[in-house]
Amino acid sequence: MELTALRWRDDRLELLDQRLLPAETRWLTLQTAAEVAAAIHDMVVRGAPAIGISAAYGVVLAAQELGNTASADQLAPAVSTLAASRPTAVNLFWALERMQRTMAGLHGAALIEALTREALRIHEDDRAMNHRLASFGVPLLPENGRIYTHCNTGALATGGHGTALGVLRSAWAAGRIRGVIAGETRPWMQGSRLTSWELMQDGVPVTLVADSSAGHLMQRGEVQAVIVGADRITANGDTANKIGTYALAVLARHHGIPFYVAAPLSTIDPALASGDSIVIEERDGNEIRCIQGKPIAPAEVPVFNPAFDVTPGELITAIITEHGVIRHPGTDTMAAHLATVNDDH
Amino acid sequence: MELTALRWRDDRLELLDQRLLPAETRWLTLQTAAEVAAAIHDMVVRGAPAIGISAAYGVVLAAQELGNTASADQLAPAVSTLAASRPTAVNLFWALERMQRTMAGLHGAALIEALTREALRIHEDDRAMNHRLASFGVPLLPENGRIYTHCNTGALATGGHGTALGVLRSAWAAGRIRGVIAGETRPWMQGSRLTSWELMQDGVPVTLVADSSAGHLMQRGEVQAVIVGADRITANGDTANKIGTYALAVLARHHGIPFYVAAPLSTIDPALASGDSIVIEERDGNEIRCIQGKPIAPAEVPVFNPAFDVTPGELITAIITEHGVIRHPGTDTMAAHLATVNDDH
Repeated sequence: MELTALRWRDDRLELLDQRLLPAETRWLTLQTAAEVAAAIHDMVVRGAPAIGISAAYGVVLAAQELGNTASADQLAPAVSTLAASRPTAVNLFWALERMQRTMAGLHGAALIEALTREALRIHEDDRAMNHRLASFGVPLLPENGRIYTHCNTGALATGGHGTALGVLRSAWAAGRIRGVIAGETRPWMQGSRLTSWELMQDGVPVTLVADSSAGHLMQRGEVQAVIVGADRITANGDTANKIGTYALAVLARHHGIPFYVAAPLSTIDPALASGDSIVIEERDGNEIRCIQGKPIAPAEVPVFNPAFDVTPGELITAIITEHGVIRHPGTDTMAAHLATVNDDH
Repeated sequence: MELTALRWRDDRLELLDQRLLPAETRWLTLQTAAEVAAAIHDMVVRGAPAIGISAAYGVVLAAQELGNTASADQLAPAVSTLAASRPTAVNLFWALERMQRTMAGLHGAALIEALTREALRIHEDDRAMNHRLASFGVPLLPENGRIYTHCNTGALATGGHGTALGVLRSAWAAGRIRGVIAGETRPWMQGSRLTSWELMQDGVPVTLVADSSAGHLMQRGEVQAVIVGADRITANGDTANKIGTYALAVLARHHGIPFYVAAPLSTIDPALASGDSIVIEERDGNEIRCIQGKPIAPAEVPVFNPAFDVTPGELITAIITEHGVIRHPGTDTMAAHLATVNDDH
């Protein structure tokens, strides 16, 4: 069975608690929208697409709580709570908007049923979309190359298969690549805890490294391409993604190594002209002062802990979506890509 | 009193166990050369100059063990053991050579006395030298700037005051800089555990960050210069230093930010033409799979854990030694600097 981290069962959302991986595989059952918002904020579930899907299910749970009184108006506070759970993930807002559009004119049981159907569809669409995205990404990767990736963009971060990691998973299955190098991804160690674990489950050769060794590996010719996911992409191709992504893009450019972003269309926010307008989430300093709860620095040391950074489109070789490949991302190429999407629908 | 991590007391070497900082301040007493070699290997003491000083005291301990039979020949195995404790630190070999030159023609008590005097002199020379080095470094730093540093190059890494961190300590005392940004420095977390702690002891404003956020900080204009130490510098200015240094140099170049290396002359190895001939120490994969002994990745995941990387001289704005400043490090400028040193002696 395909690896998954979220499932809808008996009208409840079940989330694999990713904070405990790889040591423990524990599923949590969530019954309310507030619980879903807390799970998103506390990173039980993470990864922009998985957050969006979870939030959609969160709206269903809110509607179930309201029962006969469920309506768009009554659901507004729950939608706001869910929207505030992580500030950078545009898929979150996108999924919530899709759920809100579904609400029009419906009430009570009919509304609950429609919302459930829509959330399941968002989930299934995401899984199918990742397989399409991977089919566009695989041919871009250098044959027999070792590909560096950052954070976790796999089945654990999405509805299934993954975005950047979905490309790598498909590329390995197709015999295209030699293996994957996973940066450990401080502070949350998604590379150590999740990507390593996920790739080992699927038998994909993976080597785990400290984030700070990426430059050295490129210098030694050990990396043939970099591929990462995205939390938000602006109209000109600027990409917000896990802290450290920007440094990888600069290093890749310095070494003449292609740098790819794999992300669903829902990650693209054409309303934002450039990355300058992206608000970067700053997280608690204890994520840096401690590792997995264990103190490693003086308790009072000031910390700067941005969760994301912004990679300018000009440092990105190509953005891969479920609709195809945007080479040389910029305002024009991005608009052209989005125009052909709209033509298709 | 000036912060220190190693002291010679009652004919024994005392080392502050840096693996336990900042949680605990525990001093170990070492009685044999083998104990010193183990302490260097296990990183009780770290930092190229501190390793060299410790090894010098290790030779004294070996001579004390031999007593009346102490001679250059009898000491050869102990010197070899000490030399093998860390492969990359050239100061180690330099200090051991200084000790070996002292041995000529001496035996027993006279040899022990001469070696003790020489080890104490190596220690005191290092402390004095760091203050001289700092005096050359301070004027290079951008006024009122925030300076990024990596690993720990402070009093804890040297005989006292520090190299790169000595420059920052002096610069703060002189009112030259606004503060320091310390990269946490995976896998050993010297930035979190040691640099943060050391700067807080001295009241120097420090902000701790994940290594992967350096690029983001530079992009946002938060960093006005980078300064790091060195484990080994070759004839052309190529610099081996803690893993992650090379990536910082590439990032600094990309952002037009000066990148300085502060290191004693003993770090320079003119016998090596370039960094290509530097052997990079690879350390145990569990340093990446675990943090401070706590597992964070699958136990069987393959790991690549280089302890150092090599920054080409051409990415270095200047190398600062106790003898002055080498701008645009390269074979010619390095040779010119070393020539004037020899003129002075």
